[in-house]
Order: sequence, then structure tokens, then C-alpha cells
Amino acid sequence: MATTSREVRPISYPRGEIRASDFRVVEVEVRPPRPGEVLVRNTWTSVDAALRLRLREQAPPGYFPAFPLGEPMDGIMTVGEVVESHADGFAPGDSVWHAGGWRDYALVEAKTPALGGIGTLTKLDVRDAPPQAHLGPLGANGLAAYAGLLHVAGLAEKDVVWVSAAAGAVGSLVAQLAKIRGHRVIGSAGSDDKVRHLVTDLGVDAAFNYRDGPLPDLLREVAPDGIDVYFDNVGGDHLEAALGALRKGGRVAICGMISEYGAQAPPPGPGNLMLAVTKGLTIRGFRASDHAHLLPEMRQRMGSWLREGRVNHRETIVDGLAQAPSALAALLRGDNTGKTLVRIEDVPHRESVGH
Amino acid sequence: MATTSREVRPISYPRGEIRASDFRVVEVEVRPPRPGEVLVRNTWTSVDAALRLRLREQAPPGYFPAFPLGEPMDGIMTVGEVVESHADGFAPGDSVWHAGGWRDYALVEAKTPALGGIGTLTKLDVRDAPPQAHLGPLGANGLAAYAGLLHVAGLAEKDVVWVSAAAGAVGSLVAQLAKIRGHRVIGSAGSDDKVRHLVTDLGVDAAFNYRDGPLPDLLREVAPDGIDVYFDNVGGDHLEAALGALRKGGRVAICGMISEYGAQAPPPGPGNLMLAVTKGLTIRGFRASDHAHLLPEMRQRMGSWLREGRVNHRETIVDGLAQAPSALAALLRGDNTGKTLVRIEDVPHRESVGH
Repeated sequence: MATTSREVRPISYPRGEIRASDFRVVEVEVRPPRPGEVLVRNTWTSVDAALRLRLREQAPPGYFPAFPLGEPMDGIMTVGEVVESHADGFAPGDSVWHAGGWRDYALVEAKTPALGGIGTLTKLDVRDAPPQAHLGPLGANGLAAYAGLLHVAGLAEKDVVWVSAAAGAVGSLVAQLAKIRGHRVIGSAGSDDKVRHLVTDLGVDAAFNYRDGPLPDLLREVAPDGIDVYFDNVGGDHLEAALGALRKGGRVAICGMISEYGAQAPPPGPGNLMLAVTKGLTIRGFRASDHAHLLPEMRQRMGSWLREGRVNHRETIVDGLAQAPSALAALLRGDNTGKTLVRIEDVPHRESVGH
Repeated sequence: MATTSREVRPISYPRGEIRASDFRVVEVEVRPPRPGEVLVRNTWTSVDAALRLRLREQAPPGYFPAFPLGEPMDGIMTVGEVVESHADGFAPGDSVWHAGGWRDYALVEAKTPALGGIGTLTKLDVRDAPPQAHLGPLGANGLAAYAGLLHVAGLAEKDVVWVSAAAGAVGSLVAQLAKIRGHRVIGSAGSDDKVRHLVTDLGVDAAFNYRDGPLPDLLREVAPDGIDVYFDNVGGDHLEAALGALRKGGRVAICGMISEYGAQAPPPGPGNLMLAVTKGLTIRGFRASDHAHLLPEMRQRMGSWLREGRVNHRETIVDGLAQAPSALAALLRGDNTGKTLVRIEDVPHRESVGH
């Protein structure tokens, strides 16, 4: 007996902004799991800016491949409940994460690595945090913040830290992690509401709205003596301003470049890279999945901070699987605060005969 | 009694290419050394591309300051012979280096640090190598190559290395050091003669003339599987091509950006920095003087390689102090191979009464 499920599939690669018409919701029959497989009813699915990089004819070299047109989108983090299991270690009712997002039901091979290891089917401990927290602070976003700030940027004593897109899913965790470590933290975002959120809820020392003036001026105002670490989620003019503000020996961890994801042609890079020479700067790009070995350690620490209320964790929740594309579009426009999630409606486990 | 000496002084900051008329040779009287000072007759002075960065109203932040107009150029590596000493540890006839270049005679304070420590007055061992080798492989250029390749780029087993400006003072040492370490080395330069030099004299595995076509194509031809380390002396399109060719975990050590030194406006940076994220690349700028602690170790090893004939060391020698500006212009045009040096004519130690 098969299960009726819906999948969001891309049908054309967007030029510039994402439109709902670039996607189609398709109803499919999902066959029962075979040995080694698990059938999962997805409850929450992740919406990440970097998905935009895969909605192209070609994803950037080194990245996960482009989403093929007309196919379900494999490689998006999702949490759900096991409905039926033919794999050791998984039983109906288990909360799990896996990488078969943007669909109601997913058939998952229990041992097949996904998303560089961090998307492999994994049982979740949901006693202390709701399942969807595993798509944000306890998952890939937490790992990006943790690995990026501590390992890639090599956060060191007395570093002054600037985080861009600091009201976003990763940036908000970076800002708070740096505060927990006792650093002076500057956050930037694209609206006054977000700036208030940074100061009031996340506790950064200074924050600014990047639309309020030339970035170098805004940065000089809040960090007159410069910065030591820049956690980059934006790229473009933000990265250029950071290179200008960094002090000798400063470091940049590039997690993402949301300002460039929708660009038709590659935008020019920072015109002041020579400052990397004169100031001895280090610029490192990274992906959370390259640091999968830090996941248990991060989850343990982040879990404690969440329980102790030391990490504020905001969610922008969109209801209904079919809304996933517009949620991504809103995220890329800068409309969302915190983690963007799609809550998948509770589709009854309707079984259909035949295929 | 004073000593008559000539000094090359900038009188205007060049726009674009350097012209002889941007400089003037001035005759001055140098007073006798006071306690703690040493009078040095300079014999060789260094000509370095990066001097161009100081021939501006403002040097890039973090760099050595601009050369003031109408003043002698302090902060250029030079070797010479002690004429008169009032400082412990220095005696007439000693070979020394110091940072008071582009002049016949220099009055040097023995203990005052110069050029971030690497230009402080230092007695040289010239038994095994001629004095001017201390301006190249045994000095700042050797240190840039050694520190840049081994420490900044973190050369690791099996790395494929690309060096740009590989026929230059630093690049030629990087290429040979990487070969000594057993790596596959690709060198690029701007003329067919230089390319021949790279293959025949420096022993690189593959070389190309960057003027022969689009860099990504040229690079793909000699490194179809990509590279792991790029040692950047050029910047601009070279750096962009490197980001494209680097494999996962690849590293860039930026030593210089000769392509950008004369630019009137900052040229745009590489448009493909996003590859740093997708491929987990590290880009680090550095200055040799930031690694002064490696100087003794470098000198000991480079000295052995030079003696054993394992490092080929070519010089472009220009005769006469007054030729220093045109030697720099030629270097920036890409005319020179190896280390560019000015041999200062043997001006008799003519003393004048007064002062």
C-alpha cells in the first residue's frame, strides 16, 4: 500500500527573485519502505538562503548540486516522525531529522549519508527542545555559528566581533555565542525592527541598520577602533567594509553571501583585498557540513544555553508546505527574523492501493 | 667633518607609471655618527614592487607609511659597509644591512627597529654569499617565500602549487622551495623568456605566459585537476583564476598584488569569492616583516640551498644610484627577472668641512 504525499518541485530556475510559478506542488504515491528504509511524515522543513544557490542551471563548484527541474528537492533539512520503519534503530513515533525536505512524506535510507553527513537520518532528542529547534540552533544553523565563530574565525580573547545579517538564523546565534564568550559584539541587519531585536533580545553591544548610510561610516560609529572578527552572511559591500575595519591579524569567516545569491552575473568582489596583505588578514569560507564532527559538542552546549534561556531563538513560521517557495523568497528579500520554517500541515496518513 | 652623499628623493607622487621626473637626486652632507650610531657606505640597494604602495599621498592602512615628498626614502633594504662606528658590535669594514636605502651614505641608529624588525641594522655573514644576496634570497624576499609558503599557505603533503610572477624575486624562491619539498609546481610569468627560465633554471613542472590567453584556460591546461595552494604576487585576474582552480580546502597566500599597485582607483576584487564558501578556501595576506622570527631559520636553510646550488638566484642589476627610480619602473612593467638591485657606484668617502 502506498501513501499519498505532496512534493514541492522546481519547474524553472528563477531569474533574480524567486516566484511561486517557478515551483509546482505535485501529488505522488510513496511506496512502503523496503529493508533499510524508513517512512517519515515530515512536520517541519527548513528554509535556507543558500537553497537559492541550487536553484540554477549550475550550483557553484564545490557546492551541493543544483536541484534538477521537475524532481523533488533532495538535500533540505527536515524533521518529522517515523511512520513505518524497516531499519534498525528507528521505530514508529521516533522524531528524526533527514535531508528529504519540502514534501509531506519521505522514504529515507537509514544509513545513506546526506548533506555531507549532517543530513543523514538521525533520531532526535526532543525532550528539552521542540523538534523544529533541530532545524535551527540545534542543527545546521547552530553548527554554522559554532564552527564558524570558534574554529573558522578562531575567536580569541578580546576580539571585537561584527556579525552581519545578525537577526537571521545563523547570525543571531553567532552574536549570542560571542556574547556568551564575553566579547564586544556588533550586529547589523536591514530594518529598524531587527536592529531593536538585536539590542533588546540578543544583547549585542551595538547594532545598526545597513540601509542607514555608507557601511564604513556606520561601522566606524559603533567600532571606532576597528574590529577583529567579521562573520559574513552577506558578502558584497559588507565584506568590503569589514576588510576596511579589521585590525591587524583580523579574521573573516564567510558563511554565506546572501547579497549575491540572486545575481544574474557574478558581482565584483571587494576592491580593497590588498588590505589583507597590509593588515595580515585571514579570510576563510566554510560550510557547516565541513565541520560535522563538531555537531555533538555543539548540540550539547547549545542545548544547555537554550534550556538556561541564554540563547534567544526566534522563528518565522510559515504554515503549509505549498508556502515553502514564498517563504524562501521572503527570506531572500530580508523580510524574516530568526529561523525561517515551514510547518507542514498534518496530512492524514492516507494510503492508496496500487501505485 | 661631514660626508658628502647623494639621496634619491620623491618630489611628486606618480600617477600610473613611475617617471624619473617624480624623483630628484639631492646632494647632502651627512654628519659624523654620534654615540649609538653607525655611518654606512651603501653598496647595494633593493628595488621592490611594493615600494609603489608608498609613493602615494597615503599608503594602504596597516602598511608602512607613504614616503614624504622631498625627504630621503626611509625603509628600503640596503647593504653596505660600515665606515665609522660609535655603536657596540659594529666596526669599520663590517658588512651590514639596514633600511636606509636609495642613498650613498646612511647614518643608522644601531638599535632602532626598522621595517617591522627586519630592517634593523644587522651584521651580515658574507663568507658564503655576496652581500647583495642578503637583499634577496637571504633577506626579505627569502623570508616572504619561506614564511608565505610554509606558514601562511600551510604547505601540506601532495599540494599542487601555483606561483604567479614566478620569475620574480619572491616567486622564483617560492617555486624552488616548493620543488625542494617535492611538490608539483606551476609557475606563471609575463614573457616567453621568463617561462623558459622557470622550466629550465628553476625546474618547475609546468609554466605558462599569462598573456597567452584567458587565465582559467591556461591554468586548466597545466593543472586539469586543480591546485591546492596559490602563492599570489599579482592579484586581480590571477587571484580570481586561482579561486576557480583551487580544490576543496585550498589556500591562498597573498604576498603582493603587483597588478594593482599603479591603479588610480581600486580595481574590483574577484567576482567568485563565493567559491571560498563552497570549497572551504582560506585566503591570507601577509608581510614578510610579520614573520621576522623565522629569519634565522630561513637564512640557515636558504644559505645551505644556495651553497649546494639547489636554489637558482638570478639578479637584474642596474648600475648607479640615480637609476633606482627607472629600475623600479621597469620592475613594475614586468621587464625584470629575479631580484632587482641597484649597485651603488663607489663614491669616494669625500669629507667636507662644516656641520
